[in-house]
Amino acid sequence: MDGPAVTRREVLRDPDGGPAEADAVAVEEPLEIRVGGEPLVITMRTPGEDRFLAVGLLFAEGVLESLADVGTVAHCGRAGDEGFENVIDLTAGPGVALDASRLEGTRRGTLTTASCGVCGRRSIDDLLARIGPLDHARKVPRAIARAAPEILARSQDAFPRTGGVHAAAALTADGALLAAAEDVGRHNAVDKVVGKLLYAGTLTDAALLVVSGRVSFEIVQKAAAARVGVVVAVSAPTSLAIDLARRASMALVAFARDGRMNVYAGAERLE
Amino acid sequence: MDGPAVTRREVLRDPDGGPAEADAVAVEEPLEIRVGGEPLVITMRTPGEDRFLAVGLLFAEGVLESLADVGTVAHCGRAGDEGFENVIDLTAGPGVALDASRLEGTRRGTLTTASCGVCGRRSIDDLLARIGPLDHARKVPRAIARAAPEILARSQDAFPRTGGVHAAAALTADGALLAAAEDVGRHNAVDKVVGKLLYAGTLTDAALLVVSGRVSFEIVQKAAAARVGVVVAVSAPTSLAIDLARRASMALVAFARDGRMNVYAGAERLE
Repeated sequence: MDGPAVTRREVLRDPDGGPAEADAVAVEEPLEIRVGGEPLVITMRTPGEDRFLAVGLLFAEGVLESLADVGTVAHCGRAGDEGFENVIDLTAGPGVALDASRLEGTRRGTLTTASCGVCGRRSIDDLLARIGPLDHARKVPRAIARAAPEILARSQDAFPRTGGVHAAAALTADGALLAAAEDVGRHNAVDKVVGKLLYAGTLTDAALLVVSGRVSFEIVQKAAAARVGVVVAVSAPTSLAIDLARRASMALVAFARDGRMNVYAGAERLE
Repeated sequence: MDGPAVTRREVLRDPDGGPAEADAVAVEEPLEIRVGGEPLVITMRTPGEDRFLAVGLLFAEGVLESLADVGTVAHCGRAGDEGFENVIDLTAGPGVALDASRLEGTRRGTLTTASCGVCGRRSIDDLLARIGPLDHARKVPRAIARAAPEILARSQDAFPRTGGVHAAAALTADGALLAAAEDVGRHNAVDKVVGKLLYAGTLTDAALLVVSGRVSFEIVQKAAAARVGVVVAVSAPTSLAIDLARRASMALVAFARDGRMNVYAGAERLE
Protein backbone atom coordinates (compact mmCIF):
# COMPACT_ATOMS: atom_id res chain seq x y z
CA MET A 1 0.00 0.00 0.00
CA ASP A 2 1.27 3.40 -0.97
CA GLY A 3 -1.00 5.41 1.36
CA PRO A 4 -2.04 8.98 0.53
CA ALA A 5 1.54 10.31 0.36
CA VAL A 6 2.86 8.11 -2.43
CA THR A 7 1.41 7.23 -5.82
CA ARG A 8 2.63 5.65 -9.04
CA ARG A 9 3.47 7.16 -12.40
CA GLU A 10 4.99 5.60 -15.51
CA VAL A 11 8.66 6.28 -16.13
CA LEU A 12 11.12 5.58 -18.93
CA ARG A 13 14.69 5.12 -17.77
CA ASP A 14 17.28 6.65 -20.07
CA PRO A 15 19.68 5.61 -21.53
CA ASP A 16 18.75 2.07 -20.42
CA GLY A 17 15.79 1.81 -22.77
CA GLY A 18 13.28 -0.87 -21.95
CA PRO A 19 9.53 -0.54 -21.43
CA ALA A 20 7.83 1.97 -19.16
CA GLU A 21 7.86 1.04 -15.49
CA ALA A 22 5.68 2.22 -12.60
CA ASP A 23 7.66 4.52 -10.31
CA ALA A 24 6.72 5.67 -6.79
CA VAL A 25 6.32 9.46 -6.67
CA ALA A 26 5.35 11.89 -3.91
CA VAL A 27 1.76 13.11 -4.09
CA GLU A 28 1.28 16.87 -4.44
CA GLU A 29 -2.23 18.37 -4.26
CA PRO A 30 -3.51 21.81 -3.24
CA LEU A 31 -5.07 22.25 0.20
CA GLU A 32 -7.28 25.22 0.88
CA ILE A 33 -7.45 26.11 4.56
CA ARG A 34 -10.61 27.89 5.69
CA VAL A 35 -11.44 29.40 9.06
CA GLY A 36 -15.14 29.52 9.81
CA GLY A 37 -15.85 28.91 6.13
CA GLU A 38 -13.63 31.78 4.98
CA PRO A 39 -10.80 30.74 2.60
CA LEU A 40 -7.48 31.89 4.05
CA VAL A 41 -4.65 30.22 2.19
CA ILE A 42 -3.89 27.53 -0.38
CA THR A 43 -0.77 25.45 0.06
CA MET A 44 0.56 22.71 -2.22
CA ARG A 45 0.99 19.75 0.09
CA THR A 46 1.24 16.00 0.45
CA PRO A 47 -2.21 14.75 1.54
CA GLY A 48 -2.86 12.61 4.58
CA GLU A 49 -2.27 14.74 7.67
CA ASP A 50 -4.28 17.83 6.80
CA ARG A 51 -5.65 18.43 10.28
CA PHE A 52 -2.14 18.68 11.69
CA LEU A 53 -1.01 20.86 8.79
CA ALA A 54 -3.91 23.30 9.16
CA VAL A 55 -3.60 23.61 12.93
CA GLY A 56 0.19 23.87 12.79
CA LEU A 57 0.13 26.54 10.09
CA LEU A 58 -2.49 28.65 11.87
CA PHE A 59 -0.57 28.30 15.13
CA ALA A 60 2.66 29.46 13.48
CA GLU A 61 0.88 32.49 12.06
CA GLY A 62 -0.62 33.42 15.43
CA VAL A 63 -4.23 32.78 14.37
CA LEU A 64 -4.38 30.02 17.02
CA GLU A 65 -2.78 30.32 20.44
CA SER A 66 -3.55 26.81 21.61
CA LEU A 67 -5.72 23.82 20.80
CA ALA A 68 -8.38 25.35 23.07
CA ASP A 69 -9.00 27.86 20.26
CA VAL A 70 -10.06 25.05 17.95
CA GLY A 71 -13.62 23.72 17.68
CA THR A 72 -13.85 21.35 14.73
CA VAL A 73 -11.38 20.69 11.90
CA ALA A 74 -12.90 18.80 9.00
CA HIS A 75 -12.71 18.40 5.26
CA CYS A 76 -15.75 19.92 3.65
CA GLY A 77 -17.76 18.52 0.76
CA ARG A 78 -18.74 14.90 0.35
CA ALA A 79 -16.47 11.89 0.17
CA GLY A 80 -16.15 10.84 -3.45
CA ASP A 81 -16.55 14.35 -4.89
CA GLU A 82 -13.63 15.49 -7.01
CA GLY A 83 -11.38 17.63 -4.89
CA PHE A 84 -12.81 16.28 -1.67
CA GLU A 85 -10.11 16.31 1.01
CA ASN A 86 -8.50 19.33 -0.63
CA VAL A 87 -10.45 21.85 1.46
CA ILE A 88 -10.35 21.84 5.24
CA ASP A 89 -12.40 24.10 7.47
CA LEU A 90 -11.49 24.99 11.03
CA THR A 91 -14.07 26.44 13.39
CA ALA A 92 -13.37 28.34 16.59
CA GLY A 93 -13.77 26.67 19.95
CA PRO A 94 -16.57 27.73 22.36
CA GLY A 95 -16.34 31.40 23.23
CA VAL A 96 -13.31 31.93 20.97
CA ALA A 97 -13.08 34.55 18.21
CA LEU A 98 -10.25 33.82 15.79
CA ASP A 99 -8.48 36.71 14.12
CA ALA A 100 -7.85 35.29 10.68
CA SER A 101 -6.73 38.69 9.43
CA ARG A 102 -3.49 38.02 11.24
CA LEU A 103 -2.49 35.51 8.60
CA GLU A 104 -3.38 37.86 5.78
CA GLY A 105 -1.32 40.49 7.56
CA THR A 106 1.70 38.28 7.86
CA ARG A 107 1.49 37.26 4.25
CA ARG A 108 1.02 40.66 2.71
CA GLY A 109 0.45 43.57 4.97
CA THR A 110 2.28 44.02 8.21
CA LEU A 111 5.72 43.50 6.78
CA THR A 112 5.11 46.69 4.85
CA THR A 113 5.03 50.25 6.04
CA ALA A 114 3.40 53.22 4.36
CA SER A 115 6.80 54.16 2.99
CA CYS A 116 9.16 51.56 1.58
CA GLY A 117 10.28 49.73 4.65
CA VAL A 118 9.97 45.99 4.16
CA CYS A 119 13.13 44.47 5.52
CA GLY A 120 14.51 41.46 7.25
CA ARG A 121 15.16 43.27 10.51
CA ARG A 122 11.57 44.48 10.69
CA SER A 123 10.26 40.98 9.94
CA ILE A 124 12.28 39.79 12.92
CA ASP A 125 11.10 42.67 15.12
CA ASP A 126 7.46 41.95 14.28
CA LEU A 127 7.82 38.29 15.10
CA LEU A 128 9.65 38.86 18.38
CA ALA A 129 7.06 41.42 19.44
CA ARG A 130 4.36 38.80 18.89
CA ILE A 131 5.97 35.75 20.44
CA GLY A 132 8.06 37.34 23.21
CA PRO A 133 11.45 36.05 24.35
CA LEU A 134 12.33 32.36 24.34
CA ASP A 135 13.98 32.46 27.71
CA HIS A 136 13.69 28.92 29.00
CA ALA A 137 16.99 27.52 30.14
CA ARG A 138 16.69 23.94 28.92
CA LYS A 139 19.85 22.85 27.12
CA VAL A 140 20.29 20.17 24.49
CA PRO A 141 23.39 17.95 24.48
CA ARG A 142 25.57 18.45 21.42
CA ALA A 143 25.52 14.71 20.85
CA ILE A 144 21.72 14.84 20.50
CA ALA A 145 21.95 17.69 17.98
CA ARG A 146 24.51 15.75 15.97
CA ALA A 147 22.37 12.59 16.07
CA ALA A 148 19.11 14.37 15.18
CA PRO A 149 19.40 13.97 11.37
CA GLU A 150 19.84 10.21 11.78
CA ILE A 151 16.78 10.05 14.07
CA LEU A 152 14.86 12.06 11.46
CA ALA A 153 16.00 9.76 8.64
CA ARG A 154 14.79 6.70 10.53
CA SER A 155 11.33 8.29 10.81
CA GLN A 156 11.03 8.83 7.05
CA ASP A 157 8.73 6.62 5.06
CA ALA A 158 7.97 8.35 1.75
CA PHE A 159 11.46 9.74 1.09
CA PRO A 160 13.24 6.42 0.63
CA ARG A 161 10.56 5.44 -1.89
CA THR A 162 10.17 8.72 -3.81
CA GLY A 163 13.15 10.99 -3.10
CA GLY A 164 10.55 13.72 -3.36
CA VAL A 165 9.61 14.87 0.12
CA HIS A 166 11.05 17.02 2.86
CA ALA A 167 10.91 15.88 6.46
CA ALA A 168 10.86 17.42 9.92
CA ALA A 169 10.79 16.02 13.43
CA ALA A 170 10.58 17.27 17.01
CA LEU A 171 12.76 15.71 19.70
CA THR A 172 13.02 16.04 23.46
CA ALA A 173 16.28 17.22 25.02
CA ASP A 174 17.09 13.52 25.51
CA GLY A 175 16.68 12.79 21.82
CA ALA A 176 13.32 11.02 22.10
CA LEU A 177 11.20 11.39 18.96
CA LEU A 178 7.95 13.25 19.72
CA ALA A 179 6.58 13.74 16.21
CA ALA A 180 7.72 13.55 12.59
CA ALA A 181 6.20 14.39 9.22
CA GLU A 182 6.98 14.39 5.53
CA ASP A 183 5.68 16.73 2.83
CA VAL A 184 6.56 17.99 -0.65
CA GLY A 185 6.75 21.45 0.97
CA ARG A 186 9.38 21.96 3.64
CA HIS A 187 7.25 24.43 5.58
CA ASN A 188 4.32 22.03 5.54
CA ALA A 189 6.42 19.30 7.14
CA VAL A 190 7.21 21.65 10.04
CA ASP A 191 3.58 22.75 10.36
CA LYS A 192 2.47 19.11 10.52
CA VAL A 193 4.98 18.38 13.27
CA VAL A 194 3.79 21.32 15.36
CA GLY A 195 0.17 20.31 14.74
CA LYS A 196 0.92 16.80 15.99
CA LEU A 197 2.64 18.17 19.10
CA LEU A 198 -0.38 20.35 19.84
CA TYR A 199 -2.79 17.43 19.51
CA ALA A 200 -0.54 15.18 21.59
CA GLY A 201 -0.12 17.84 24.28
CA THR A 202 3.65 17.49 24.00
CA LEU A 203 4.64 20.86 22.54
CA THR A 204 6.32 21.92 25.78
CA ASP A 205 8.47 18.77 25.72
CA ALA A 206 9.91 19.64 22.33
CA ALA A 207 13.45 20.96 22.69
CA LEU A 208 14.76 20.48 19.16
CA LEU A 209 13.34 20.72 15.64
CA VAL A 210 15.28 18.92 12.91
CA VAL A 211 14.64 19.43 9.18
CA SER A 212 15.93 17.43 6.23
CA GLY A 213 17.00 20.25 3.94
CA ARG A 214 18.02 23.87 4.07
CA VAL A 215 16.86 26.22 6.80
CA SER A 216 15.31 29.54 5.84
CA PHE A 217 13.78 32.38 7.83
CA GLU A 218 10.35 30.79 7.74
CA ILE A 219 11.51 27.52 9.30
CA VAL A 220 13.17 29.31 12.23
CA GLN A 221 10.06 31.51 12.51
CA LYS A 222 7.86 28.44 12.91
CA ALA A 223 10.22 26.98 15.52
CA ALA A 224 10.23 30.30 17.38
CA ALA A 225 6.44 30.48 17.37
CA ALA A 226 6.38 26.94 18.79
CA ARG A 227 9.01 27.99 21.38
CA VAL A 228 11.41 25.24 20.33
CA GLY A 229 14.82 26.63 21.11
CA VAL A 230 17.12 24.50 18.94
CA VAL A 231 16.84 24.07 15.17
CA VAL A 232 19.01 21.52 13.36
CA ALA A 233 19.20 21.31 9.56
CA VAL A 234 20.95 18.78 7.37
CA SER A 235 21.82 21.42 4.78
CA ALA A 236 22.62 25.15 4.58
CA PRO A 237 21.16 28.13 6.50
CA THR A 238 20.25 31.52 5.06
CA SER A 239 21.45 34.84 6.46
CA LEU A 240 18.01 35.77 7.76
CA ALA A 241 17.50 32.38 9.42
CA ILE A 242 20.74 32.96 11.35
CA ASP A 243 19.82 36.54 12.21
CA LEU A 244 16.42 35.53 13.58
CA ALA A 245 17.87 32.67 15.61
CA ARG A 246 20.41 35.02 17.20
CA ARG A 247 17.83 37.68 18.02
CA ALA A 248 15.49 35.06 19.49
CA SER A 249 18.27 33.42 21.53
CA MET A 250 17.77 30.16 19.66
CA ALA A 251 20.43 27.70 18.59
CA LEU A 252 20.75 27.24 14.84
CA VAL A 253 22.74 24.23 13.69
CA ALA A 254 23.21 23.46 9.98
CA PHE A 255 25.18 21.08 7.77
CA ALA A 256 24.53 18.44 10.45
CA ARG A 257 25.74 15.29 8.75
CA ASP A 258 28.29 12.54 9.21
CA GLY A 259 28.64 13.32 12.92
CA ARG A 260 29.64 16.93 12.34
CA MET A 261 27.71 20.19 12.48
CA ASN A 262 28.06 23.95 12.11
CA VAL A 263 26.67 26.09 14.94
CA TYR A 264 25.56 29.47 13.55
CA ALA A 265 23.69 30.76 16.59
CA GLY A 266 22.99 30.03 20.24
CA ALA A 267 25.92 27.76 21.10
CA GLU A 268 25.03 28.47 24.74
CA ARG A 269 21.87 26.39 24.32
CA LEU A 270 24.00 23.33 23.56
CA GLU A 271 25.97 21.51 26.23
CA MET B 1 33.80 40.28 -3.09
CA ASP B 2 30.72 38.39 -2.02
CA GLY B 3 28.21 40.43 -4.06
CA PRO B 4 24.60 40.81 -2.94
CA ALA B 5 23.89 37.05 -2.94
CA VAL B 6 26.48 35.97 -0.39
CA THR B 7 27.34 37.35 3.03
CA ARG B 8 29.33 36.22 6.06
CA ARG B 9 28.22 34.92 9.44
CA GLU B 10 30.24 33.51 12.33
CA VAL B 11 30.24 29.75 12.72
CA LEU B 12 31.52 27.27 15.29
CA ARG B 13 32.49 23.92 13.84
CA ASP B 14 31.60 20.97 16.02
CA PRO B 15 33.15 18.69 17.24
CA ASP B 16 36.39 20.28 16.00
CA GLY B 17 36.29 23.08 18.54
CA GLY B 18 38.46 26.07 17.73
CA PRO B 19 37.48 29.72 17.52
CA ALA B 20 34.56 31.11 15.54
CA GLU B 21 35.21 31.46 11.82
CA ALA B 22 33.48 33.57 9.18
CA ASP B 23 31.38 31.37 6.89
CA ALA B 24 29.84 32.32 3.53
CA VAL B 25 26.03 32.07 3.67
CA ALA B 26 23.29 32.78 1.14
CA VAL B 27 21.50 36.09 1.67
CA GLU B 28 17.74 35.90 2.27
CA GLU B 29 15.68 39.10 2.42
CA PRO B 30 12.01 39.85 1.71
CA LEU B 31 11.07 41.50 -1.56
CA GLU B 32 7.73 43.21 -1.91
CA ILE B 33 6.55 43.44 -5.50
CA ARG B 34 4.19 46.32 -6.28
CA VAL B 35 2.33 47.08 -9.49
CA GLY B 36 1.52 50.75 -9.96
CA GLY B 37 2.28 51.34 -6.29
CA GLU B 38 -0.08 48.57 -5.13
CA PRO B 39 1.58 45.82 -3.03
CA LEU B 40 0.91 42.45 -4.65
CA VAL B 41 3.15 39.85 -3.09
CA ILE B 42 6.11 39.41 -0.77
CA THR B 43 8.65 36.73 -1.55
CA MET B 44 11.73 35.76 0.45
CA ARG B 45 14.54 35.99 -2.05
CA THR B 46 18.25 36.40 -2.66
CA PRO B 47 18.83 40.08 -3.58
CA GLY B 48 20.60 41.26 -6.67
CA GLU B 49 18.38 40.51 -9.66
CA ASP B 50 15.07 41.89 -8.46
CA ARG B 51 14.00 43.36 -11.79
CA PHE B 52 14.23 39.94 -13.44
CA LEU B 53 12.48 38.28 -10.50
CA ALA B 54 9.58 40.74 -10.52
CA VAL B 55 9.04 40.61 -14.27
CA GLY B 56 9.43 36.83 -14.39
CA LEU B 57 6.99 36.28 -11.52
CA LEU B 58 4.36 38.59 -12.97
CA PHE B 59 4.79 36.96 -16.39
CA ALA B 60 4.31 33.48 -14.90
CA GLU B 61 1.12 34.62 -13.19
CA GLY B 62 -0.27 36.15 -16.37
CA VAL B 63 -0.18 39.73 -15.10
CA LEU B 64 2.33 40.53 -17.89
CA GLU B 65 2.05 39.11 -21.39
CA SER B 66 5.30 40.55 -22.71
CA LEU B 67 7.91 43.15 -21.93
CA ALA B 68 5.81 45.63 -23.90
CA ASP B 69 3.43 45.65 -20.92
CA VAL B 70 6.20 47.04 -18.70
CA GLY B 71 6.93 50.72 -18.26
CA THR B 72 9.43 51.18 -15.45
CA VAL B 73 10.71 48.71 -12.87
CA ALA B 74 12.50 50.34 -9.97
CA HIS B 75 13.21 49.99 -6.28
CA CYS B 76 11.32 52.62 -4.38
CA GLY B 77 12.55 54.63 -1.45
CA ARG B 78 15.97 56.20 -1.17
CA ALA B 79 19.32 54.50 -1.35
CA GLY B 80 20.68 54.12 2.16
CA ASP B 81 17.27 53.83 3.84
CA GLU B 82 16.79 50.64 5.80
CA GLY B 83 14.91 48.18 3.65
CA PHE B 84 15.78 50.04 0.48
CA GLU B 85 16.00 47.55 -2.37
CA ASN B 86 13.42 45.32 -0.67
CA VAL B 87 10.48 46.94 -2.46
CA ILE B 88 10.22 47.08 -6.22
CA ASP B 89 7.50 48.84 -8.17
CA LEU B 90 6.52 48.00 -11.72
CA THR B 91 4.48 50.44 -13.78
CA ALA B 92 2.50 49.62 -16.90
CA GLY B 93 3.81 50.49 -20.34
CA PRO B 94 2.17 53.22 -22.44
CA GLY B 95 -1.48 52.42 -23.11
CA VAL B 96 -1.34 49.22 -21.04
CA ALA B 97 -3.68 48.36 -18.15
CA LEU B 98 -2.30 45.56 -16.00
CA ASP B 99 -4.73 43.23 -14.28
CA ALA B 100 -2.96 42.63 -11.01
CA SER B 101 -6.03 40.87 -9.62
CA ARG B 102 -4.96 37.92 -11.72
CA LEU B 103 -2.14 37.21 -9.32
CA GLU B 104 -4.37 37.52 -6.28
CA GLY B 105 -6.76 35.15 -8.04
CA THR B 106 -4.10 32.57 -8.69
CA ARG B 107 -2.87 32.75 -5.16
CA ARG B 108 -6.17 32.53 -3.36
CA GLY B 109 -9.31 32.73 -5.37
CA THR B 110 -9.70 31.08 -8.73
CA LEU B 111 -8.48 27.69 -7.59
CA THR B 112 -11.58 27.62 -5.43
CA THR B 113 -15.19 27.15 -6.42
CA ALA B 114 -18.25 28.13 -4.43
CA SER B 115 -18.52 24.53 -3.30
CA CYS B 116 -15.49 22.54 -2.23
CA GLY B 117 -13.72 21.97 -5.50
CA VAL B 118 -10.06 22.91 -5.18
CA CYS B 119 -8.15 20.12 -6.83
CA GLY B 120 -5.08 19.37 -8.83
CA ARG B 121 -6.99 18.64 -12.01
CA ARG B 122 -8.81 21.96 -11.87
CA SER B 123 -5.52 23.81 -11.23
CA ILE B 124 -4.22 22.22 -14.42
CA ASP B 125 -7.41 23.02 -16.37
CA ASP B 126 -7.26 26.67 -15.29
CA LEU B 127 -3.64 26.98 -16.36
CA LEU B 128 -4.13 25.30 -19.73
CA ALA B 129 -7.17 27.47 -20.44
CA ARG B 130 -5.00 30.53 -19.86
CA ILE B 131 -1.84 29.58 -21.71
CA GLY B 132 -3.26 27.42 -24.53
CA PRO B 133 -1.52 24.37 -25.98
CA LEU B 134 2.26 24.15 -26.25
CA ASP B 135 2.20 22.72 -29.74
CA HIS B 136 5.55 23.70 -31.19
CA ALA B 137 7.38 20.73 -32.65
CA ARG B 138 10.94 21.57 -31.63
CA LYS B 139 12.68 18.54 -30.15
CA VAL B 140 15.58 18.41 -27.73
CA PRO B 141 18.29 15.75 -28.07
CA ARG B 142 18.37 13.32 -25.16
CA ALA B 143 22.09 13.99 -24.80
CA ILE B 144 21.34 17.67 -24.17
CA ALA B 145 18.76 16.79 -21.51
CA ARG B 146 21.24 14.48 -19.80
CA ALA B 147 23.97 17.15 -19.95
CA ALA B 148 21.76 19.99 -18.71
CA PRO B 149 22.47 19.55 -14.96
CA GLU B 150 26.20 19.78 -15.65
CA ILE B 151 25.70 22.97 -17.71
CA LEU B 152 23.60 24.35 -14.83
CA ALA B 153 26.23 23.45 -12.26
CA ARG B 154 28.92 25.28 -14.24
CA SER B 155 26.75 28.41 -14.17
CA GLN B 156 26.45 28.42 -10.39
CA ASP B 157 28.37 30.92 -8.35
CA ALA B 158 26.78 31.17 -4.90
CA PHE B 159 26.04 27.46 -4.42
CA PRO B 160 29.65 26.24 -4.29
CA ARG B 161 30.34 28.88 -1.66
CA THR B 162 27.20 28.60 0.47
CA GLY B 163 25.41 25.31 -0.30
CA GLY B 164 22.30 27.38 0.32
CA VAL B 165 20.77 28.35 -3.00
CA HIS B 166 18.70 26.72 -5.70
CA ALA B 167 19.53 27.27 -9.34
CA ALA B 168 17.76 27.27 -12.69
CA ALA B 169 18.87 27.79 -16.28
CA ALA B 170 17.34 27.99 -19.75
CA LEU B 171 19.06 26.28 -22.67
CA THR B 172 18.49 26.19 -26.40
CA ALA B 173 17.77 22.88 -28.13
CA ASP B 174 21.50 22.77 -28.90
CA GLY B 175 22.43 23.06 -25.25
CA ALA B 176 23.57 26.68 -25.38
CA LEU B 177 23.09 28.51 -22.08
CA LEU B 178 20.68 31.43 -22.49
CA ALA B 179 20.21 32.49 -18.86
CA ALA B 180 20.85 31.17 -15.35
CA ALA B 181 20.01 32.33 -11.84
CA GLU B 182 20.40 31.34 -8.21
CA ASP B 183 18.09 32.04 -5.30
CA VAL B 184 17.25 30.76 -1.83
CA GLY B 185 13.78 30.07 -3.24
CA ARG B 186 13.52 27.56 -6.07
CA HIS B 187 10.58 29.37 -7.68
CA ASN B 188 12.46 32.63 -7.58
CA ALA B 189 15.38 31.15 -9.49
CA VAL B 190 12.99 30.14 -12.29
CA ASP B 191 11.28 33.55 -12.28
CA LYS B 192 14.67 35.26 -12.59
CA VAL B 193 15.61 33.09 -15.54
CA VAL B 194 12.36 33.88 -17.35
CA GLY B 195 12.78 37.58 -16.55
CA LYS B 196 16.28 37.51 -18.05
CA LEU B 197 15.00 35.78 -21.19
CA LEU B 198 12.29 38.42 -21.59
CA TYR B 199 14.80 41.27 -21.26
CA ALA B 200 17.23 39.58 -23.65
CA GLY B 201 14.49 38.85 -26.17
CA THR B 202 15.48 35.19 -26.18
CA LEU B 203 12.44 33.56 -24.59
CA THR B 204 11.43 31.92 -27.87
CA ASP B 205 14.90 30.35 -28.18
CA ALA B 206 14.51 28.57 -24.84
CA ALA B 207 13.78 24.89 -25.36
CA LEU B 208 14.74 23.48 -21.99
CA LEU B 209 14.52 24.61 -18.35
CA VAL B 210 16.80 22.85 -15.89
CA VAL B 211 16.46 23.14 -12.10
CA SER B 212 18.85 22.06 -9.38
CA GLY B 213 16.43 20.38 -7.00
CA ARG B 214 13.04 18.77 -6.99
CA VAL B 215 10.34 19.66 -9.47
CA SER B 216 6.87 20.56 -8.20
CA PHE B 217 3.68 21.70 -9.92
CA GLU B 218 4.68 25.34 -9.67
CA ILE B 219 7.98 24.86 -11.52
CA VAL B 220 6.28 23.10 -14.44
CA GLN B 221 3.58 25.79 -14.36
CA LYS B 222 6.21 28.51 -14.79
CA ALA B 223 7.85 26.60 -17.66
CA ALA B 224 4.46 26.12 -19.31
CA ALA B 225 3.64 29.82 -19.00
CA ALA B 226 7.00 30.58 -20.62
CA ARG B 227 6.23 27.98 -23.34
CA VAL B 228 9.41 26.03 -22.62
CA GLY B 229 8.54 22.47 -23.56
CA VAL B 230 11.18 20.45 -21.70
CA VAL B 231 11.84 20.57 -17.94
CA VAL B 232 14.83 18.76 -16.45
CA ALA B 233 15.34 18.37 -12.70
CA VAL B 234 18.26 16.96 -10.80
CA SER B 235 16.02 15.50 -8.13
CA ALA B 236 12.51 14.05 -7.77
CA PRO B 237 9.20 15.10 -9.37
CA THR B 238 5.81 15.32 -7.67
CA SER B 239 2.65 13.66 -8.95
CA LEU B 240 1.06 16.96 -9.94
CA ALA B 241 4.20 18.13 -11.77
CA ILE B 242 4.02 14.98 -13.89
CA ASP B 243 0.29 15.31 -14.47
CA LEU B 244 0.61 18.92 -15.63
CA ALA B 245 3.52 18.11 -17.95
CA ARG B 246 1.51 15.30 -19.57
CA ARG B 247 -1.59 17.42 -20.02
CA ALA B 248 0.49 20.27 -21.49
CA SER B 249 2.43 17.93 -23.83
CA MET B 250 5.68 18.88 -22.12
CA ALA B 251 8.62 16.62 -21.40
CA LEU B 252 9.39 16.16 -17.71
CA VAL B 253 12.77 14.64 -16.89
CA ALA B 254 13.86 14.08 -13.28
CA PHE B 255 16.70 12.42 -11.36
CA ALA B 256 18.98 13.68 -14.16
CA ARG B 257 22.41 12.92 -12.74
CA ASP B 258 25.51 10.93 -13.56
CA GLY B 259 24.54 10.65 -17.23
CA ARG B 260 21.19 9.01 -16.50
CA MET B 261 17.67 10.36 -16.29
CA ASN B 262 14.04 9.35 -15.72
CA VAL B 263 11.50 10.54 -18.30
CA TYR B 264 8.09 10.96 -16.65
CA ALA B 265 6.28 12.76 -19.46
CA GLY B 266 6.63 13.80 -23.09
CA ALA B 267 9.30 11.37 -24.29
CA GLU B 268 8.19 12.34 -27.81
CA ARG B 269 9.74 15.78 -27.28
CA LEU B 270 13.16 14.17 -26.87
CA GLU B 271 15.06 12.71 -29.79
